Amino acid sequence: MRNFKVIMAYDGSRYHGFQRQSNSLAVQQVVEDALKKLLKEKVTIFGCSRTDTGVHAREFVFNFFSESTITPRGIVYGANDLLPDDISFFSCVEVDELFNARYNCIGKEYEYIIHNSEIKNPFYYKKACKHWFEIDAELLNEQSKDFIGTYDFKSFCSTDCDKDITVRTIHDFSVSREGDIVKFKVSGDGFLYNMVRIMIGTLLYINDGKIDRDSIKEIIKKMDRRKAGKTVVPDGLYLNKVFY
Amino acid sequence: MRNFKVIMAYDGSRYHGFQRQSNSLAVQQVVEDALKKLLKEKVTIFGCSRTDTGVHAREFVFNFFSESTITPRGIVYGANDLLPDDISFFSCVEVDELFNARYNCIGKEYEYIIHNSEIKNPFYYKKACKHWFEIDAELLNEQSKDFIGTYDFKSFCSTDCDKDITVRTIHDFSVSREGDIVKFKVSGDGFLYNMVRIMIGTLLYINDGKIDRDSIKEIIKKMDRRKAGKTVVPDGLYLNKVFY
Repeated sequence: MRNFKVIMAYDGSRYHGFQRQSNSLAVQQVVEDALKKLLKEKVTIFGCSRTDTGVHAREFVFNFFSESTITPRGIVYGANDLLPDDISFFSCVEVDELFNARYNCIGKEYEYIIHNSEIKNPFYYKKACKHWFEIDAELLNEQSKDFIGTYDFKSFCSTDCDKDITVRTIHDFSVSREGDIVKFKVSGDGFLYNMVRIMIGTLLYINDGKIDRDSIKEIIKKMDRRKAGKTVVPDGLYLNKVFY
Repeated sequence: MRNFKVIMAYDGSRYHGFQRQSNSLAVQQVVEDALKKLLKEKVTIFGCSRTDTGVHAREFVFNFFSESTITPRGIVYGANDLLPDDISFFSCVEVDELFNARYNCIGKEYEYIIHNSEIKNPFYYKKACKHWFEIDAELLNEQSKDFIGTYDFKSFCSTDCDKDITVRTIHDFSVSREGDIVKFKVSGDGFLYNMVRIMIGTLLYINDGKIDRDSIKEIIKKMDRRKAGKTVVPDGLYLNKVFY
């Protein structure tokens, strides 16, 4: 069997995340349907990540097996013709049979975008989170560095989380401002359920004075979800890069 | 009667342009309905421009008269609560009774965005025009300068155009590239029906070798729509600024 690695992007606004679900539309189903139509065979794709409802991906990696003789270029152009406008394949290469997009992934980078303004902007609808209170990007950039390292991130994991091991390594975290847009960028070896959105929510609570400055390391130690900030909306979250 | 000047932005994707129509949804209708609800009186708004179906506005100016005692700030926040997510008021000021957003306008700036790639990108859907053939932005920037000046732009006006006088002054025109995005920026004292989209279409024909280089001045002289390039799609067009 041939094994194909695909890099795709999607606007997650109208999807219930990546993973196929029985009663709501997920990216996986739409992609598998397009590939089935293109390759005339049933296809299962293996995604690098689940991604939540409404989360976007600038670079999402998956692999799938096929008996087809199609070229990788044929997969990209053929699938893009069949996919809706909010999903696009950027590239496809044939890889070793052992490659698995999920298990071989050694890291990911996420970006979270906040539109920091009192006034809504139609061009950021479903593409950014809105925050009224003025964000001190310099302060949050400093504070965010306390996430860097290897820790048990149980405090930053949804209580729905089904993982036994909640230790993860954060490689880098930065916060910067461009006009009324504030960008949070975080990379690590892996992320727990809602982890990025809870980390951003905690930084926003520090910004707004709801959590003390310099308390991130302490919140990590508590291993208690209730000590961290709220889970921010998915609209501003982008899976940016996936590392192998 | 008090006269209010409002600056708003809208994502034009789902509207049949600005101007109210009998059988399709236009921005004017949605804004007038919101203001009627807010001010408890029938309101007519006077827009700076018509804008076509699917065209976006980063800064659209209109004025309206009202008997209401509401503050300008109350208009911005009150209307934004009532408007859909693809339309937003940025500011409102009370102006002289003689001010009219259309007749007092002395110039406009438009931006046209092209996603120059073989592969579609979900984040540019309805927000940019797609062009496969590689664009030489430097060449088109040079060529675009031939539009600058005061000319009869009949060749660059839709044949549906109902204007008797087709003389307009273009103040500036520039083309630049940022990655796979090519931006066209043009400002002038006024624009004919479809004029910006035909000017961009003509530049693309020059890029693709369908029209000779250095022939823009000649096309202007011919005063014949058939000599210019095609009318590009509205998706990439943004009304950027309006001058008074």
